[in-house]
Amino acid sequence: MSAQETIAIIAGRGSFPSLVARAAKNAGMRAAIAGFKGFTDQDLVRDADQWKLLRMGRLSQLIAYLKSTGATRVCMAGAIDKPQALSLRPDLRALKVLMRMRGKGDDALLRALINELETEGFSVVQAADLAPSLRAPHGVLSSREPSSQEWSDLRFGWAAAKRMGELDIGQCVVVRDGVIVAVEAMEGTDQTLQRAGQVAGPGCVVVKTVKPGQEERVDLPALGKTTIESLIQAKAACLGFEAGKTLFFDLDESIRLADSANICLIGLTQEDIGLSS
Amino acid sequence: MSAQETIAIIAGRGSFPSLVARAAKNAGMRAAIAGFKGFTDQDLVRDADQWKLLRMGRLSQLIAYLKSTGATRVCMAGAIDKPQALSLRPDLRALKVLMRMRGKGDDALLRALINELETEGFSVVQAADLAPSLRAPHGVLSSREPSSQEWSDLRFGWAAAKRMGELDIGQCVVVRDGVIVAVEAMEGTDQTLQRAGQVAGPGCVVVKTVKPGQEERVDLPALGKTTIESLIQAKAACLGFEAGKTLFFDLDESIRLADSANICLIGLTQEDIGLSS
Repeated sequence: MSAQETIAIIAGRGSFPSLVARAAKNAGMRAAIAGFKGFTDQDLVRDADQWKLLRMGRLSQLIAYLKSTGATRVCMAGAIDKPQALSLRPDLRALKVLMRMRGKGDDALLRALINELETEGFSVVQAADLAPSLRAPHGVLSSREPSSQEWSDLRFGWAAAKRMGELDIGQCVVVRDGVIVAVEAMEGTDQTLQRAGQVAGPGCVVVKTVKPGQEERVDLPALGKTTIESLIQAKAACLGFEAGKTLFFDLDESIRLADSANICLIGLTQEDIGLSS
Repeated sequence: MSAQETIAIIAGRGSFPSLVARAAKNAGMRAAIAGFKGFTDQDLVRDADQWKLLRMGRLSQLIAYLKSTGATRVCMAGAIDKPQALSLRPDLRALKVLMRMRGKGDDALLRALINELETEGFSVVQAADLAPSLRAPHGVLSSREPSSQEWSDLRFGWAAAKRMGELDIGQCVVVRDGVIVAVEAMEGTDQTLQRAGQVAGPGCVVVKTVKPGQEERVDLPALGKTTIESLIQAKAACLGFEAGKTLFFDLDESIRLADSANICLIGLTQEDIGLSS
């Protein structure tokens, strides 16, 4: 029997790191998790074969820990809110990374961090490389197909979401009857859906896409059971997402849940949007 | 003494119609207000010389009332939430207007309504025509000038807000240190500011601009004391707005309030943004 691979997970906020850790373990790997005080949910320890809680901004410490785990592949999962991260006291190495950064968006920070990890010989992989089944499938997943009004809102929302992404604003847009109801920025998808339900009522169409040119290794759109629960609460009608480039956790359960509320789930590509217009 | 002019105000949600009615009366006019059941704040009656509560979507009834007031100039003030307005039962005349509409955005609806009123001989004026002092002034209004970081966020936010406007999404964008924190869509400015304060903490820069090509007679950005109170609550640092094309209610009191919280208020033009970059 060959030695079991250890994968290192740099864990941000929310349940995403836990889902990635479980996916990695299902795929036969050991999960070594680096969490951050004040950011990472400490329940994560349950999904870790190995675990360390670090202080945000201490990059030398992080790299030392990653090396100690024996991992060669590193995955980042879960949001690290940049404004808060930057207000903490970085160590010398983190400072050097920050000084070299040109852009100011999240992508710039993440790319700089990836470069630094690669310099140390780690290969930075995306969650879907650990468990290819996490990639969102193409086509209609739910029992219900989109109505023609929903198709029209999906196309309109897709175009708007891509423009938001170009500006590095967010990945998610909510449309109802040709009107944009809510745009996600820093607050995240669940809050955006909740707001959309409140201001526009039932029947919203939600679109979540990859930002053009975004660092796909660390910042792919992620969906899962919680997203469907938010859709149900907001009485949304339809969710469109980018097939292959979105992570979809708990897919079977999510589909069951969506069907129970008659919500349409559809994995789309640029071509679908173009061809159907 | 010449006969006093009656101005008719078609009143939507919020305190905006009341502010317009008071501005008109300060300018020596009589205010005849048309409100809508379930939409308009009925306290408005206090600011009206004449008042009628109508059912949304009954356009013939609205036009008959406007004619009965003797007004020739009509002003629309306050949001009418389109999805809700459309879910009500329109009369035949309103249906005809809806059938003729090509676009689906708010602007299309408003333009169609304006055309219909003009057909009946009314001239549709903007609030600032009733009281030119409502137009937001140009330049720094507060004691404090923007810092260089705030200037940079104002420019970035201005460009983003104009792109949101092109897509008919919203007028307001919140930036902090080069990152877009919140984008307004249907929820309105106050909710957007509240969210921005929660997700990004103190120090946000808020930009509110006119949508490119928007129907300026009925849909100008409006600011006032409530906006400043929202800024204070969100611990925002700076508010930039479009000089001349924004309505600023209670200006003196707003400036006093902003100064008391060290908030910078600045009226900008496209040229300012270009020249300062």
